[in-house]
Amino acid sequence: MKKSASSLFAKRLDNLAKVAVYVGLRPVLGQQVILSAPIEALDMVRLVTKHAYEAGASLVTPLYDDGTATISRVKFAAEGSFDTAPDWLFKGMAAGFENNAARMAITSEIPGQFAGLDTTRIGRSAKARAGAYKIASEYITAGAINWNISPAANPAWAKQVFPDLPPKQALAALWNEIFKATRADEDDPVSAWNAHNAELARRKAQLNARNYQSIRFFGAGTDLTVGLAEGHAWAGGETVGKNGVTYNANIPTEEVFCAPHNLRVNGYVLSTRPLSLQGQVVENIYTKFENGLIVDAKADKSNDTFQHLLNTDEGSRRLGEVALVPHSSRISKSGVLFYNTLFDENAACHIAVGQSYNKCFVDGKTAAKDDLIARGANQSNAHVDWMIGSNQINVDGICQDGSIEPIMRGCEWVNA
Amino acid sequence: MKKSASSLFAKRLDNLAKVAVYVGLRPVLGQQVILSAPIEALDMVRLVTKHAYEAGASLVTPLYDDGTATISRVKFAAEGSFDTAPDWLFKGMAAGFENNAARMAITSEIPGQFAGLDTTRIGRSAKARAGAYKIASEYITAGAINWNISPAANPAWAKQVFPDLPPKQALAALWNEIFKATRADEDDPVSAWNAHNAELARRKAQLNARNYQSIRFFGAGTDLTVGLAEGHAWAGGETVGKNGVTYNANIPTEEVFCAPHNLRVNGYVLSTRPLSLQGQVVENIYTKFENGLIVDAKADKSNDTFQHLLNTDEGSRRLGEVALVPHSSRISKSGVLFYNTLFDENAACHIAVGQSYNKCFVDGKTAAKDDLIARGANQSNAHVDWMIGSNQINVDGICQDGSIEPIMRGCEWVNA
Repeated sequence: MKKSASSLFAKRLDNLAKVAVYVGLRPVLGQQVILSAPIEALDMVRLVTKHAYEAGASLVTPLYDDGTATISRVKFAAEGSFDTAPDWLFKGMAAGFENNAARMAITSEIPGQFAGLDTTRIGRSAKARAGAYKIASEYITAGAINWNISPAANPAWAKQVFPDLPPKQALAALWNEIFKATRADEDDPVSAWNAHNAELARRKAQLNARNYQSIRFFGAGTDLTVGLAEGHAWAGGETVGKNGVTYNANIPTEEVFCAPHNLRVNGYVLSTRPLSLQGQVVENIYTKFENGLIVDAKADKSNDTFQHLLNTDEGSRRLGEVALVPHSSRISKSGVLFYNTLFDENAACHIAVGQSYNKCFVDGKTAAKDDLIARGANQSNAHVDWMIGSNQINVDGICQDGSIEPIMRGCEWVNA
Repeated sequence: MKKSASSLFAKRLDNLAKVAVYVGLRPVLGQQVILSAPIEALDMVRLVTKHAYEAGASLVTPLYDDGTATISRVKFAAEGSFDTAPDWLFKGMAAGFENNAARMAITSEIPGQFAGLDTTRIGRSAKARAGAYKIASEYITAGAINWNISPAANPAWAKQVFPDLPPKQALAALWNEIFKATRADEDDPVSAWNAHNAELARRKAQLNARNYQSIRFFGAGTDLTVGLAEGHAWAGGETVGKNGVTYNANIPTEEVFCAPHNLRVNGYVLSTRPLSLQGQVVENIYTKFENGLIVDAKADKSNDTFQHLLNTDEGSRRLGEVALVPHSSRISKSGVLFYNTLFDENAACHIAVGQSYNKCFVDGKTAAKDDLIARGANQSNAHVDWMIGSNQINVDGICQDGSIEPIMRGCEWVNA
């Protein structure tokens, strides 16, 4: 009995690694892979690495983050040192992407990891890191290469998600939810993803055909009108990189998303799920927008951390993404709050401050950067999503001629 | 009893990390540290990182090697992919060193880790990696920055060194030998190192005053005359980098070493201890030199791996280092064979094929590369030491006027 449970777990973990490689990243023959992961995700990294080699990768280079080392830095490093970032590493990564290396990240959130530490030091480090990373992340936001983010469980995260279970059972329960959300519980997960990608493609085509000038979220303390960028394109599911490789950026993913016009967002909005940010849990975010700019913002919990995010740069007070997710999505239905954006953003409609994606423009692969900016693309070293959808929220589309159409009611699609 | 043993261990481990940081690397205020280590050395990395921050480092970036991932590559990657190296990463590291980042490595040998795998694939990977790393390693060989290599134990290494002990005791025994060899068993290890560095400085001064044209190793199947480079300088113990920082490159270190003239080495030599190389154990190496070039070479065990090393490039068949270590050194006296060059090279006189060090020239900080090459400096992407000293071996110095002086008998210093 025990043995069969553990062999089922091994099978599903291997399925998840396969999904990450064969659905997510899809490295082509001879391609290098630059992989980052928290040290807690070592086992998952090893499985992904093995499948990536079988899939044709020439070299997988894992870069590990270690929260323990970060805690030492915040506690013991000199006050003057927190604006330093590993610029040399990101310069190297950029050189790798320039030579068509693929980018893989394993995410394994450790909520509250940095609770009690100096948030100013953490915020300064995060800001410096985001600024230095831009030279590399531009290859991602510009859609130059295939990339993927996939999850791994860890005990601290499991405890947060299942606080009432003993540690071992909590970890097993979190893995189980991850397997369900990522379709790794299916016998043939790659086929299941093919069907899901087809459904997301159909939904994108419907929205693109309508070419809305803006969309409005309203209900339960929210009334937010998000103008869409000129020449926007809804994205979601599979993408084709400029390097010609088809990939799924996020595992799991249930969203279709678009580029807001960074000067044309107005109204106010309440978050509907907690946001895990820089090791803190940010709750009940209220933001008010005028002509694209956040003019008022407050979170009930970890407000300092949230304000640090908004103060990253000019673009971090404007939207770079708006996304639609049905309330009945696979992840929403699980009823689980993951405290991890990769999951929670796929349980509800959401917005993100910061950098927008080129693939959210019809001509994103060829248009000049300045042209995209003139059409409403947002520029920032940050990109952070939080959730604004629930069964209390409705979404309307405002057409180019000013007419209004219902898109979602209680965050369910109005059209099949 | 148990508690006090474990608190003594914790104290000594912390001492070792202190030695690595305050004797070895000595990061200065605001300096970045690029740290590499096998994943098995995580605990040691965390301690070193903590002390490095306390010492003034602005940011420590650990890069982990994972043997398990390497095994996956050798087993599963496409045949055409083994000449690929992480050139992007080394380009980034070079940019870091150009901006005065310090370089730290934790070594934790896992002997025989790759036994049974395709040695051609491993050799091709190692050669490609060495070639790509040159852009970064030149900062080390040129003495531009402060750098350090320090050790950490691991269970597989402990089993190799103490095959007759149960695993836990073997690991404790290896740590104990590491603590002794690195002076981490002293109450004030930093003071102990200060005294040791003074002694090495005295020995260097003696040898430099003699300015030998060559040195000869003879006895027990060996008769090797190593011509020294023109304008050579003996090095060992503390060094001052071009960046002005004083550091100890190796922890432990018992050697004084010099640059051979790469065209003036003649004779034959037997190795006296096993060499751990690319996960294999190479034993009983015989090499024959003519005018600096290895014209005949054979190892009784892992000969393939050794031949791959010699075939790295033109310079990997010529010497880049010759070193003197008394047979009565702290590490030799332990009687332990570590199967790790960092230790074993400090138990016996040794030679290295491959790249020579600029600090082994009197004007190494300022002389042009071509000038050093004309005076006998060796160029290679490799640098691998093996041991040739024992109590059966004598060393003579041949003066510039041709006269001969005894330097060591049975590998003990003739002069106090």
